[in-house]
Order: sequence, then C-alpha cells, then structure tokens
Amino acid sequence: MTDLSSLPLREGLRGQSPYGAPQLDVPFMLNTNENTHPVPPEVAEAVVARVAQVAGGLNRYPDREFTRLRESLAGYLGHGLTAAHVWAANGSNEVLQQILQAFGGPRRSVLSFLPSYSMYPLLAAGTDTAFVDGGRAADHTLSAEHAAAMVREHRPNLVFLASPNNPTGTALGLDVIEAVYTAQARNEAEGGPGAMVVVDEAYAEFALDGTPSALTLLEGRERLIVTRTMSKAFALAGARLGYLAADPAVADALRLVRLPYHLSSVTQATAIAALEHVETLLETVADIKAQRDRIVARLRELGLDPAVSDSNFVFFGHLEDAHAVWEALLERGVLVRDVGIPHHLRVTAGTEEETTAFLTALEEALAAGAR
Amino acid sequence: MTDLSSLPLREGLRGQSPYGAPQLDVPFMLNTNENTHPVPPEVAEAVVARVAQVAGGLNRYPDREFTRLRESLAGYLGHGLTAAHVWAANGSNEVLQQILQAFGGPRRSVLSFLPSYSMYPLLAAGTDTAFVDGGRAADHTLSAEHAAAMVREHRPNLVFLASPNNPTGTALGLDVIEAVYTAQARNEAEGGPGAMVVVDEAYAEFALDGTPSALTLLEGRERLIVTRTMSKAFALAGARLGYLAADPAVADALRLVRLPYHLSSVTQATAIAALEHVETLLETVADIKAQRDRIVARLRELGLDPAVSDSNFVFFGHLEDAHAVWEALLERGVLVRDVGIPHHLRVTAGTEEETTAFLTALEEALAAGAR
Repeated sequence: MTDLSSLPLREGLRGQSPYGAPQLDVPFMLNTNENTHPVPPEVAEAVVARVAQVAGGLNRYPDREFTRLRESLAGYLGHGLTAAHVWAANGSNEVLQQILQAFGGPRRSVLSFLPSYSMYPLLAAGTDTAFVDGGRAADHTLSAEHAAAMVREHRPNLVFLASPNNPTGTALGLDVIEAVYTAQARNEAEGGPGAMVVVDEAYAEFALDGTPSALTLLEGRERLIVTRTMSKAFALAGARLGYLAADPAVADALRLVRLPYHLSSVTQATAIAALEHVETLLETVADIKAQRDRIVARLRELGLDPAVSDSNFVFFGHLEDAHAVWEALLERGVLVRDVGIPHHLRVTAGTEEETTAFLTALEEALAAGAR
Repeated sequence: MTDLSSLPLREGLRGQSPYGAPQLDVPFMLNTNENTHPVPPEVAEAVVARVAQVAGGLNRYPDREFTRLRESLAGYLGHGLTAAHVWAANGSNEVLQQILQAFGGPRRSVLSFLPSYSMYPLLAAGTDTAFVDGGRAADHTLSAEHAAAMVREHRPNLVFLASPNNPTGTALGLDVIEAVYTAQARNEAEGGPGAMVVVDEAYAEFALDGTPSALTLLEGRERLIVTRTMSKAFALAGARLGYLAADPAVADALRLVRLPYHLSSVTQATAIAALEHVETLLETVADIKAQRDRIVARLRELGLDPAVSDSNFVFFGHLEDAHAVWEALLERGVLVRDVGIPHHLRVTAGTEEETTAFLTALEEALAAGAR
C-alpha cells in the first residue's frame, strides 16, 4: 500500500482534496440544498413499478438516446420545447462537464462570476478549460453592464451564469443574460470567439413570483443553454438526473463527448416515473418557499442581512465569526454550510420543523454569544 | 434551429460522428457483447426490492463513498481485496475516463495496442491525452517483448491493456502485464515518467480454464489497475456499473476527479442486489462459454480462422468482403459487429438458439455466395 503522493498524478491535482460537503449524521441536515421532504409514497411506488418493468431486461444496454425521458422532460418544461431540444446526464454536474468537453478544453476559457456554484472552477480544471472570474458587486449582485463588460474584456468560449445564484440564492434579471449573449455575439462579429452561454437554473422551481426563466429566451439564441436538475424541487438528489434545454444542435454536440449509454435504464425509469407524478412531487415546493420566506424575514429581524432568495436556501451575513456560528449550530444538531465567504453562512429551507429547529438554534447561539 | 457546424465546437471534435454501435431492431442482436440471457427473475425481484428500500429517500444525495457497494464488489473479487481497494463508476468507460482525468491530460500520453477496445482512443481524446498505438503482430497477438519495448520507446503515462482483448477475444499472458509494468518502472528509474498500467478485464468471467486474472498481480504493484464491469457476465449492461481494483491510493486519486455523488442511490441499490445473487447471475456463464466454444469450433471447420476466445464473443476472418457478409447476416435477422478490420467480423455468443441462428445464417450466407 502506498500513498497518493507516490503515484504519477497529473500536475494540477497534486496536493488537492476531494470536493464535497461534509457528510455528518446530525438531526437537521440543512447544508446541501436537498429537498428535505421524503419522496411521496405515491411517487416512490411509481418509481419501483417502473424499475420492475426494466429489471428483467437489464442485460441489454440502455436506450442510448433516452428518447422517452427526453420527451418527458420536454413536456415538463413546456415553452414549445421538444425531445430534440433536451439532453440529460447523471446530475447537472455531468451536463456541465459534457458542455465543457464539447466547447471548452485547452486554450479555451469559461467565464463565471464568483462567488457562485463551487463546482464551476473544478469542472473547468477537470476539462483543462481556463476559468476566469468576472467578479460581482460587493453585495454579490451581478449587473448587465458588468457582466457584458467582462465578456467583452475576456472573450471567453463559455459563460456560466447561475440563476438563482448559489450560494447567494438570487435570480438574475433576463437583462443580464441578454446582455451577455449580445456581448459574445459582438466578440464574434469582431473576429473573436463566440461563447456558449449556460444559465444554470438548478433551483428555478423555487423562484419568487414574477421571476422569469431563461427558457423564455431560448428562441432564436442558438448558443444559449438552460440547465436544470431533478435534485432539488423534484426531491430526487439520489437519482442523479440533470438536464438541459437548448437548440437541438447543442445535443448533437454533446453526443460527440458523452460516454455511450451514460444514462442507465434504471435512471431513465426512475426519472420517467417521477415526471409522470410531477404535480405530487412539486407539492412540497410551496411549503419550502414559505419556510424560505420565513427564514429571510426572521434573519432580517435579527440583522443578519439575508440575500433575496429565489431558491430553497438563504445566504446571510453580518456575522463576525461565521465558522463559530456554524459550530454553535452544529452543537445544537443543525448542519448548515460554511461556503468559505467570510462573515456569511448558507442554510437550506426544509420542513417547518427543520426551519424552527434552525431558527431556534441560531437564536440560542446568538444569545450564547456566538456572532 | 441551427446545425452543429455553426456552434463553436472545440477543434478536435469538428466533423466527428457520435460513437456507438448501430441500434437496429432485429431478432438476433449479437453485436454489442451483452449477455443475451435476461436477468433471472430472482435477481430482478431482488433489484426491485432494494430499489424499493431507497425510493422514499431519493430526496437525499447518495452515499458519495458508496461504501456498501465497494464492500460487495471486494467480496466478489476475493484475492484479499477490501473496500479500500475498490472504486466504481457509471460503466467501465467512466472508470477509464476518471483514470485518464487523474493520470493523463495535456502533454501526457496513453499507450495501447490496436486493434483493441474502440473507446480507448476516444476516451484519450476526450481528456486531451495523446493516444499512442503500439501495434500488434499480424495475427493480432501481443508479446511481452513487443509490449515492453513499446513502453520503453514511447515512455507513456498510462498503458491500457485489454485482457481478453476486444475485438479479438484473447486474454493476455500475465508475462505481458509483468513486462509492461517492469518497463514503466525502468523508465522512471531513468528519470522518465512512470505509468499507470490498466488491465481492462471487462470479460474476465468468460476466460478459458487456466487463464489467470491480473488481480493475482496487484500485490506489491501500486501502479497496476484492474478494471471490471457488471455489463457482461453479470447481465447488467443496462445498470451501468464498472469498477476497478488497485492500491487504495488509486481510489484516492480518483476522488479528486470524480463528480460528487456520481453513483446514484438507485445504481448502488441495483448493483448491491445483484451481488447478493452472484451465483444465480453467473449461472449463464457456463452456457455462454459452451456456445462460444461451439462457434469457434464451427468457424474453424468453415475455414474462418476464429481467434482464441476468453470472452463471450468470437472474432473471425478470412472473409473477402466482411461487410457483405455482415449485410447477408442482417438480411437473415442476425446483427453482428463489423469492427472495421478488413476481412473480419465479431459475433457475440448468446443463447443456444441465438448461436444456432447465427451459424445457420452464416452457412446460408456463405452458400449464397457471400464470403
């Protein structure tokens, strides 16, 4: 038995640690933005029934084109989309990895705006794509003007825009996406590279009323990609199903880089079953949004400056020692996420009971002197 | 809607077509080396029962470390291996991709010996790893001397050795693997790069009596990796589960490049259930080997020079126009694989009925003048 340092690991990986939130066994796990509501029995039974249909035939490779699943996803998304506009993979991380494999790579770059989803730089590194941070305003918002200026300055091959953003939770205005798209088109018109513009809508179903989806912008924008996941609102993080909507040519591009048969028959069956019960599955979304709004309101009362949240989590600040507060919450059985931004923490909005537990623990911790 | 050529695809992908065997709906599908026996009802029921156990909890992310599955796989492999020696991913293609992401990449190379598994060059390209073909003898065998000489000459960072090889079906002698391993160690002793030596044993369970596994070589060879899959002998191609055994440091390396939660809870449950019924699942192997031997014997009688097969497929030659024979078989409802090697075809050994259908169709085709 040897250790990692004696293996001929590629240079960029030396000294690194694996990515992943701590997995601790505590009563209230509010750190990874899962839907904390169990899958409804009706949906769980439907999943099992669909898996039973395919189990005897697992000796055969899956449908490499997962046509039925793409049809189901297109039907859910609406906006006139068809199976040809849809692609899927094992989690939206794999969708993003495939996008980088197709449009990124050595001597290419992806622009994003940190703080944002912490996998973006890691996915870029994993595909040897240069990662460029365009930055955000001090309050972590992103304006159309700034985003477009960064696209013009850095001339990236891809732009990753999380909407709502993670860890902050706030959705982008469509004006930001339109401005970024126009900026990449201007780059190309001047002889530079055009860019694939990826809007990561992992949390779209939790948006505040009146927040539009970038799906409304797809028509006529062949380089716009909107990614989604079944891990959050759909309460299927364990099933690993991410997907996207875009011009059909984008799916053709990803067919060049996907591993053959990347989506198992069991994964396809599970996702199809869930989509057949989408109304039941999404019944928890209204409750989660109510708890989210309850957290925002209370944190505001406590002077902790929560960000506007279109998601199932709340980012808050004005803490002197965020990690001390994180530990004080953990001592009280509540696991939230220290995202590494000084003075800030992020908490997932769960059930009413979990929300009460979090708020109670936080108030206790503050009363005990944590801040 | 646009087409692929108008998107800013990376250079290496332009003009390419997606990889994958033709998926045609014919009575006898003997082209992708699946186990053509359906999953036994007892195993299918166990899979459904295990999925039922996890379905209600799919709102949570899977066990990122898939510890129980690794324990099950180690128990199956034997050879004193433990969960720490095992890693898994969505198909052995993903295992190989992760190995390339960890140990290959730009300015690095992987050496293999063509003809071999057609995904190797594609996986190399997908990770920007240079692919070097060391070649084989005219009869498609690979000697220890030649393999070692190629390692010494090209000084690769990885070596991919398929045993049994695909599409030829013949296992490597352990002397070849030992010679390759020693050659990479000599490269490093001289100040060159050491190489990870990957032995792809996707078809190991079909080996002829007396053919040893490279698992017997793992002890003391920290750079040796043996990959396996549940797609072939286990009759679980649809479940997508590939795995490896190696020094525990190899799994640590892959933890740096795997996407978090890459193995779904449903995939883990399916594989665990199958491994609990491994004797039942592998009952078909003896029959498949008998059919394989029957194909080899008959093709030999027909003068078609079948290769020695340690796998569930047979590679044969001496055809004037292999594609014409492929078409003549397809007309008779039998789909085999034209692997692109002139004068040769590859056929999967299936059930007795399928084998009879193939041999009958082939004899008819030859009688009708195809050759």
